[in-house]
Amino acid sequence: MNSHNNYKFGMIGLGTMGRNLLLNMADKGFSVTGHDKNLQMIALLKEEGKAHHLNGFADVKDFINSLEKPRKIILLVPAGAIVDNVINELIPLLDKGDIIIDSGNSYFADTSRRDEELKALGIHFFGMGISGGEEGARFGPSLMPGGDKEAYAMMKDVLEAVSAKVDNEPCVTYIGPGASGHFVKMTHNGIEYAIMQLIAEMYEFLKNGLNYSNEQIQQFFAKCNEGRLKSFLIEITANIFLVKDKQTGNLLVDMIRDQAKSKGTGKWTSQIAMDLEVPIPTIDSAVAMRNLSKLKQLRVSLENDLGKSTPVKVDPEMDIHLENAFFFAMVSAYAQGMHLLQQASRTYEYNLNLAEIAKIWRGGCIIRATFLSDIYQAYSRNPELGHLFKDENIQQQLSDSLDSTRKIITKALNHGISVPAFAASLTYFDMLKTGRMPSNLTQAQRDYFGAHTFERTDEEGIFHNDWNSGN
Amino acid sequence: MNSHNNYKFGMIGLGTMGRNLLLNMADKGFSVTGHDKNLQMIALLKEEGKAHHLNGFADVKDFINSLEKPRKIILLVPAGAIVDNVINELIPLLDKGDIIIDSGNSYFADTSRRDEELKALGIHFFGMGISGGEEGARFGPSLMPGGDKEAYAMMKDVLEAVSAKVDNEPCVTYIGPGASGHFVKMTHNGIEYAIMQLIAEMYEFLKNGLNYSNEQIQQFFAKCNEGRLKSFLIEITANIFLVKDKQTGNLLVDMIRDQAKSKGTGKWTSQIAMDLEVPIPTIDSAVAMRNLSKLKQLRVSLENDLGKSTPVKVDPEMDIHLENAFFFAMVSAYAQGMHLLQQASRTYEYNLNLAEIAKIWRGGCIIRATFLSDIYQAYSRNPELGHLFKDENIQQQLSDSLDSTRKIITKALNHGISVPAFAASLTYFDMLKTGRMPSNLTQAQRDYFGAHTFERTDEEGIFHNDWNSGN
Repeated sequence: MNSHNNYKFGMIGLGTMGRNLLLNMADKGFSVTGHDKNLQMIALLKEEGKAHHLNGFADVKDFINSLEKPRKIILLVPAGAIVDNVINELIPLLDKGDIIIDSGNSYFADTSRRDEELKALGIHFFGMGISGGEEGARFGPSLMPGGDKEAYAMMKDVLEAVSAKVDNEPCVTYIGPGASGHFVKMTHNGIEYAIMQLIAEMYEFLKNGLNYSNEQIQQFFAKCNEGRLKSFLIEITANIFLVKDKQTGNLLVDMIRDQAKSKGTGKWTSQIAMDLEVPIPTIDSAVAMRNLSKLKQLRVSLENDLGKSTPVKVDPEMDIHLENAFFFAMVSAYAQGMHLLQQASRTYEYNLNLAEIAKIWRGGCIIRATFLSDIYQAYSRNPELGHLFKDENIQQQLSDSLDSTRKIITKALNHGISVPAFAASLTYFDMLKTGRMPSNLTQAQRDYFGAHTFERTDEEGIFHNDWNSGN
Repeated sequence: MNSHNNYKFGMIGLGTMGRNLLLNMADKGFSVTGHDKNLQMIALLKEEGKAHHLNGFADVKDFINSLEKPRKIILLVPAGAIVDNVINELIPLLDKGDIIIDSGNSYFADTSRRDEELKALGIHFFGMGISGGEEGARFGPSLMPGGDKEAYAMMKDVLEAVSAKVDNEPCVTYIGPGASGHFVKMTHNGIEYAIMQLIAEMYEFLKNGLNYSNEQIQQFFAKCNEGRLKSFLIEITANIFLVKDKQTGNLLVDMIRDQAKSKGTGKWTSQIAMDLEVPIPTIDSAVAMRNLSKLKQLRVSLENDLGKSTPVKVDPEMDIHLENAFFFAMVSAYAQGMHLLQQASRTYEYNLNLAEIAKIWRGGCIIRATFLSDIYQAYSRNPELGHLFKDENIQQQLSDSLDSTRKIITKALNHGISVPAFAASLTYFDMLKTGRMPSNLTQAQRDYFGAHTFERTDEEGIFHNDWNSGN
């Protein structure tokens, strides 16, 4: 067994993502080594990487011995108990100062716990979000590493080399301490859920509202991708409407079941946002709609009982209104995600740089979009910006799109075309600009039935009223 | 110290709720005893209950000794660690066969854990939801006890005696095993959040949309309470608009800060629904809006930048449309809650009787409403009803209200009056009657960027496409 003892970086988990990231590192001139218990994966790695200085081992000790010290080991294994199992297997083989980088979609609270446990043993632990899918891992992902800042210095070169580039700048930055990398990646995925749901609703509007053919839908998305909606998700949507199913000759998308699956990162985003008391209703709505999609039988049966949506009158300006409405709703979704990051940064002391985060999301990742430059600029101009909606440029763009947004959503609601995420984006905006909300009534009710007390507008303190005797 | 050794029921935690429930039991002729470390609470109990056969002890041993065996001890202490502390203090003092009934708003997963722990010691543990606030506890709450069915037989008489009555039937039933009582109570609170948010949005529409005076708003709610919206929450809302602030002479509700607090039960409902993959978007929205209400400074500042909502043209039919829209949205919220219970019953094997649950909610509790009889009837007619929307009577009522609902929501959205919970209720309905959702596109995207695979409409199996090469 050839163990040079001089490979710079190691990878555990040689599935497609792991192999691709390792090959990406090898492309950039780094010597790399991999470990997987599955011999087939090692054979694949060696075959795919035969032009490079790399190696692979089925035995974890051989793998560890092949690494230069301090060892830098990336894990790309499924989130959950497997990460703990791998770490436990590694601990007796590692030395103080070694670095473990968990690059799966681990839940950030697990990352916090592992960080604490490994810190006690003198081992550096990083939770690093990777976005960009298999393509991204191979040719340039967006990377979100969080952990010990000094250890980051030892990985900076390779991470910058393999990451996507936008304007020659790498799509990676040191995110912050602890589990901040995984928190930021989770929030990225929450925004991704929201945007995908908005695209699905736009598709529904085009297909069943405007009765567009697949070709018209394809053209619509392709055109969207030429303007301010330019983004990876819009681009692949346009591409999807070009792909034929070999079996039937129909478009493949038409042969796919309308039941959306999920791996949990969107759900985690909504759940933790509720714990942190940050409203992210568009993301919540996207999570709910993935779940609703699973109720196929019920939906078919209720459509039969209650009837379908009805067509919208086609109007040459509808495309523009729809594009504007999507822009508006998308901005609202990004704003919610950034607001969540801001609150998480306070609660967990992540000290996040929101401008930098927007910047590294401009390339490589699934939610990359032209609009991220606007977010980057907003937080660059004012790092203390309380909310994305407070930026003047964003305000101007939202105001310009507002009429179209109201038009599209009310049109959809009048015709029974369900647009929950669009509606959530708009009502979030409208509520956030409501100086005096009707929540005074909610507090009065809570005090009435549960003596939960209230605060007054005109003086400090906690008050209770005996409402029953008051009238 | 007087310790008769013959009191039938004991209460730990003699705050207002605990004392009131104990006095309610004493009213019905049961001999009761209480324990609180705070001597003042014991004095209050003795004073308030001086006409009754009851007792109170600051020493927990004296309290335990005053109880007939098997002991039946109700806890009304704050949810969380305090419940564990009290249980741990009790364990060495109890015998096998004794019963502990936790009547606080404990999280159902904590109840499951405590149930398991105490079962191992031979002690029966009940999680019992109580709704109705202080008034309810004193004169008739809705009770949701879950736990061992045989132990329930020993408490049935007293629980039926103290509970609220509707048509001479007690608002209590054996809910199911384990933590089912607390799960059902949590879901009750989730529905409560949704209805309170809907009332708040209706208030906003009346106040800032239609520019109604407080007097007109009061009349509107009072009138609503005469028809099919008749319910505790509408009733107290009408009452609230009668109560003057003694300090300023204004209505008290106008002097209350518009920042809604919460104790977590609504949040838990949304979070667990996401784990159980049940969409409950109206409840999610209510949770988000409580959190949004806390962002007062931001809201005031954004209103200043982006402008207020605009008035809606007053139309004599608007009151009727609004009442219909509220009815529709309220039904949607109840349906979501019942759907959550149905799924929880499957997942946790609670074997819930949804008809019985609707029945005991008709009186005593915060969400009691005339409409609960319709829910009761729906599940009585068909205990296997897949969703409340599948009931013909409910379908008819929803269809009759649908035009008004679309009218009110689109009106609100066009005028910038934020109605997120109304919109969530309607889009939920519209999506649930969408036989073919646009989620096929979501699955195509997931397979495109992440190789997450998809299912086909025309054959079984899991498929993956190489989308990039397909066009």
